[in-house]
Amino acid sequence: MKSIEVKVTKPKVDVSRPKIWLRNEFLRVGLAESLCTYVMMAFGLGSVAQVVTGQGVFGQYISINLGFGLGVAMGVHVGGKVSGAHMNAAVSFTMCVFGQLAWKMLPLYVCAQLLGTFLASGTVYAVYYEAIHHYSGGNLTVTGERATAGIFATYPAPYLSLTGGFLDQVFGTAMLLLCLMALSDQRNTPPAAGTQPLIVGFLVMLIGISFGSNSGYAINPTRDIGARLFTAIAGWGTDVFRAGNGWWWVPIVAPLIGGVLGGGVYKALVELLHPPVSAQGEGPLEEEFVLQEKEQSICSNKCV
Amino acid sequence: MKSIEVKVTKPKVDVSRPKIWLRNEFLRVGLAESLCTYVMMAFGLGSVAQVVTGQGVFGQYISINLGFGLGVAMGVHVGGKVSGAHMNAAVSFTMCVFGQLAWKMLPLYVCAQLLGTFLASGTVYAVYYEAIHHYSGGNLTVTGERATAGIFATYPAPYLSLTGGFLDQVFGTAMLLLCLMALSDQRNTPPAAGTQPLIVGFLVMLIGISFGSNSGYAINPTRDIGARLFTAIAGWGTDVFRAGNGWWWVPIVAPLIGGVLGGGVYKALVELLHPPVSAQGEGPLEEEFVLQEKEQSICSNKCV
Amino acid sequence: MKSIEVKVTKPKVDVSRPKIWLRNEFLRVGLAESLCTYVMMAFGLGSVAQVVTGQGVFGQYISINLGFGLGVAMGVHVGGKVSGAHMNAAVSFTMCVFGQLAWKMLPLYVCAQLLGTFLASGTVYAVYYEAIHHYSGGNLTVTGERATAGIFATYPAPYLSLTGGFLDQVFGTAMLLLCLMALSDQRNTPPAAGTQPLIVGFLVMLIGISFGSNSGYAINPTRDIGARLFTAIAGWGTDVFRAGNGWWWVPIVAPLIGGVLGGGVYKALVELLHPPVSAQGEGPLEEEFVLQEKEQSICSNKCV
Amino acid sequence: MKSIEVKVTKPKVDVSRPKIWLRNEFLRVGLAESLCTYVMMAFGLGSVAQVVTGQGVFGQYISINLGFGLGVAMGVHVGGKVSGAHMNAAVSFTMCVFGQLAWKMLPLYVCAQLLGTFLASGTVYAVYYEAIHHYSGGNLTVTGERATAGIFATYPAPYLSLTGGFLDQVFGTAMLLLCLMALSDQRNTPPAAGTQPLIVGFLVMLIGISFGSNSGYAINPTRDIGARLFTAIAGWGTDVFRAGNGWWWVPIVAPLIGGVLGGGVYKALVELLHPPVSAQGEGPLEEEFVLQEKEQSICSNKCV
Repeated sequence: MKSIEVKVTKPKVDVSRPKIWLRNEFLRVGLAESLCTYVMMAFGLGSVAQVVTGQGVFGQYISINLGFGLGVAMGVHVGGKVSGAHMNAAVSFTMCVFGQLAWKMLPLYVCAQLLGTFLASGTVYAVYYEAIHHYSGGNLTVTGERATAGIFATYPAPYLSLTGGFLDQVFGTAMLLLCLMALSDQRNTPPAAGTQPLIVGFLVMLIGISFGSNSGYAINPTRDIGARLFTAIAGWGTDVFRAGNGWWWVPIVAPLIGGVLGGGVYKALVELLHPPVSAQGEGPLEEEFVLQEKEQSICSNKCV
Repeated sequence: MKSIEVKVTKPKVDVSRPKIWLRNEFLRVGLAESLCTYVMMAFGLGSVAQVVTGQGVFGQYISINLGFGLGVAMGVHVGGKVSGAHMNAAVSFTMCVFGQLAWKMLPLYVCAQLLGTFLASGTVYAVYYEAIHHYSGGNLTVTGERATAGIFATYPAPYLSLTGGFLDQVFGTAMLLLCLMALSDQRNTPPAAGTQPLIVGFLVMLIGISFGSNSGYAINPTRDIGARLFTAIAGWGTDVFRAGNGWWWVPIVAPLIGGVLGGGVYKALVELLHPPVSAQGEGPLEEEFVLQEKEQSICSNKCV
Repeated sequence: MKSIEVKVTKPKVDVSRPKIWLRNEFLRVGLAESLCTYVMMAFGLGSVAQVVTGQGVFGQYISINLGFGLGVAMGVHVGGKVSGAHMNAAVSFTMCVFGQLAWKMLPLYVCAQLLGTFLASGTVYAVYYEAIHHYSGGNLTVTGERATAGIFATYPAPYLSLTGGFLDQVFGTAMLLLCLMALSDQRNTPPAAGTQPLIVGFLVMLIGISFGSNSGYAINPTRDIGARLFTAIAGWGTDVFRAGNGWWWVPIVAPLIGGVLGGGVYKALVELLHPPVSAQGEGPLEEEFVLQEKEQSICSNKCV
Repeated sequence: MKSIEVKVTKPKVDVSRPKIWLRNEFLRVGLAESLCTYVMMAFGLGSVAQVVTGQGVFGQYISINLGFGLGVAMGVHVGGKVSGAHMNAAVSFTMCVFGQLAWKMLPLYVCAQLLGTFLASGTVYAVYYEAIHHYSGGNLTVTGERATAGIFATYPAPYLSLTGGFLDQVFGTAMLLLCLMALSDQRNTPPAAGTQPLIVGFLVMLIGISFGSNSGYAINPTRDIGARLFTAIAGWGTDVFRAGNGWWWVPIVAPLIGGVLGGGVYKALVELLHPPVSAQGEGPLEEEFVLQEKEQSICSNKCV
């Protein structure tokens, strides 16, 4: 019998333990949420900057999907256990609506996400400063052949109406929250412990692959307005708010509606309908169908 | 006996426990099967719509493979533990044939899958309405340079005969079920617990990469006819049934044959030949070959 | 206290237990090895056929890398626990040399791999029969603009000499076995239990991404000669042996040398140098360097 | 206390136990670090050589990102438990600065990494010798249309100033170490045990997707100077040091600064702020926010 004792492992772990403990939980959560949003946005915006300024040589649209997708995965690894790594006001808002986050925390999350996005936008602009100026010839424009504002905030396709764009953002965010709720439903088929960051990243990559062409899949109010504000200040001017018939407010409002919609659909059709846990906490009380037994072994997320 | 503290985790889990329990198992399974099919099809069809209307700028064929592949992975996360997330009548039918699903459940699964597919087709058409009309110039055609019916249902390549297409669909579905049976065979080398959704998604992506060019790898009766019916109603008309020499029935019949064929081949050549479980439930009774011992450590899916 | 008892899970597992047990271990292993090789080759060759006949519309070179990579992953899932899913004579040969496979098993593995490869080649030709004839105009040629023999067996690039190709195949196979030995070294950093099939697949994909352009990364004697024999019989004729200055023997001989070389290098530089297991079987006796303690927690593949 | 039978597994594992034990820990670590660096660089440089000499037919920029990313993953599998598989002097240096590696080990790691890189450069040149000479027409040039020096070492884009390139390398390496610190922080959301090699590989792939176009993301002093020295000797001459306004020293100096910067930011904003471990070693003492409870179940990396 090999026994793993806390005594054996703890001291080893304690070697890399923190020496100080921040008592202010708000600051602790805020810093983590800012940092993971920063990481996600730096990788995401960096991939767009590389594809746009690289003119096809250094990546294609799929690179942007991978950039934001794996960027989200790294963000969750950076902030996950501390703040939950929402990195998206629509996620925080939906969690508040469904009682998974205290409303008093919402302003903190939104501010932390805005801060992280704004700083990431500044960093990416600095790192790609020469590339952007070389590509655009020095003219920072929002529309036109060599427009570069799209590296930071999202803009709708020429054919898209505000109504169509609003629906696009509502639906994209609904799919995000619907799947996020499923991924965190321990009674269903969640990812293996420790693989959630990657799977959540693949989800965001998937949304970009399936619903990215209409308006650049912001599906995230803080991500979009934070980057847009930066461009307004950094030299692209107020056109960033005028472009696309005043598109700027759509990625703020639509995702909040879509998130609650998608999360609610999953909870109403699946999560709330799970049978009660049996005494032994062994999942469904008894199975009427052969398939269920099969599923038990196929879909169980237990390690035994 | 392996024992894990439950007092600590149980109450925590119960916080997010369902408040109500739907007694009607049929409705519960049907809703989950519809929702996961909806998720899979929305992502899958969305990726085709993006690639077709994006004219090469917003993705290529590999994006469609990823869209359907990761869409399947998300679908399994959404419905896995409740309905098994077949999302495919060929899978349900094969499971019935091999006694892993009660025949009385088949109609429920087929109806749920048709409903989910139909609703997803409608949603994708709504989200890409302006893009499709901008791309096609307003003419919803099944064939021709700007045809858009292929965004929803599958159509054979110009060079393909009905016989060739039938073989293509039988074989593609056979590979799907052959591998699915292997992935759920606990005596073999199944994916790590909690990673099955991703691996099943990669399997569907792989089929699209290897057997997608002949006729668009429907390998799924409900997925294909559900989307085809939508297009027939939504404005593409009865051409969706006439195109490809009346191709429409092939993705319905061929996958049912292929699924049973592929699943049967795996069971006959591998699953049914596993040695009996030894008393200690420790896998093969005793190994004659050194390799086996190696394999034990290489391929074991146990956590110890 | 929640306790998972073997008694609870065993009966559930037994529901899907095999009813019969094949006593002939040789046949059991041979059938599994043939089937997993068939699966790997069907997906792999299918992806090449799709890319070649699709003329750029249905995938690019990366699709072929994914096709063979994920094809290998599925092959390991299909045959892993039964035969070890070598699917490659160079792997079987190297395991014999290092005593991980009994020499008496080698002929069985080689024959099973040849059978699986030959049948897969035939299946892919049947499924892509119309596509290949449409693409080649009916002329099955080994060289020239519309050559299709390269869908099945490998051929060297025009600039490549036999010496250069021999080195290419030795090195590619050496990298394969070097990494495979590392992936199965339980004293090092093996993949998580149940994820080995995917990681082995990624390894093959990686070799195709890094060492595929010189001569098509056969790195597998049975895979190459099996498919070549099929094409010789199926209509491409004896040119398949003459092409590339009689290239056909290189993918047979070079991988056998490379496999032993690569596997030996890993064993000599890492595996044989591991410190002895301490009494508690707790890894290295004692660590002299801080880094080791860190690595323990970073790289441990234990679930605790 | 969680207990797992060991009598059953130990003897099985001992079958593949090392026969001899190298007492010289320095040599053991050095050999492993050299070999894993060799593996990473062989795959990475091989993918660049394939893309460059393949002229678009055998891969695109994303193939290079995959080549280095999965190459890193394989490198960690090869050296992880023995040396930690830094494969990068900036990683070793940062670990020394933060006390996770003894300073006396730094020279060993740097030499081992240089040796592995130099040998890998030579191997890749040998394997692609005919391809490189066929592509370049025999002229080994550092700049110009058919330049091939970029296959081995990194060079800045024409528009990039030394200052801009310095910032690019500082930031890229900062993102690498920031995320690496998060991935190894057991109090946060680390990858599942046994999946770290893949996730670290995805991180490097992500940096190439998001910050690769400015100067080829060396983010690694030993990787860059080792390959540059090889090209200087192998025939490209001293131009490899003159090119890009004497770019060669930037990938040596900037990553050392960036690594400490990024690692420090993570430790300062997250790792050092973790609350103390409670008596039961159950993570945060008590949670004030609902979200935390949710996160517990969403982000826990425990197998139970």
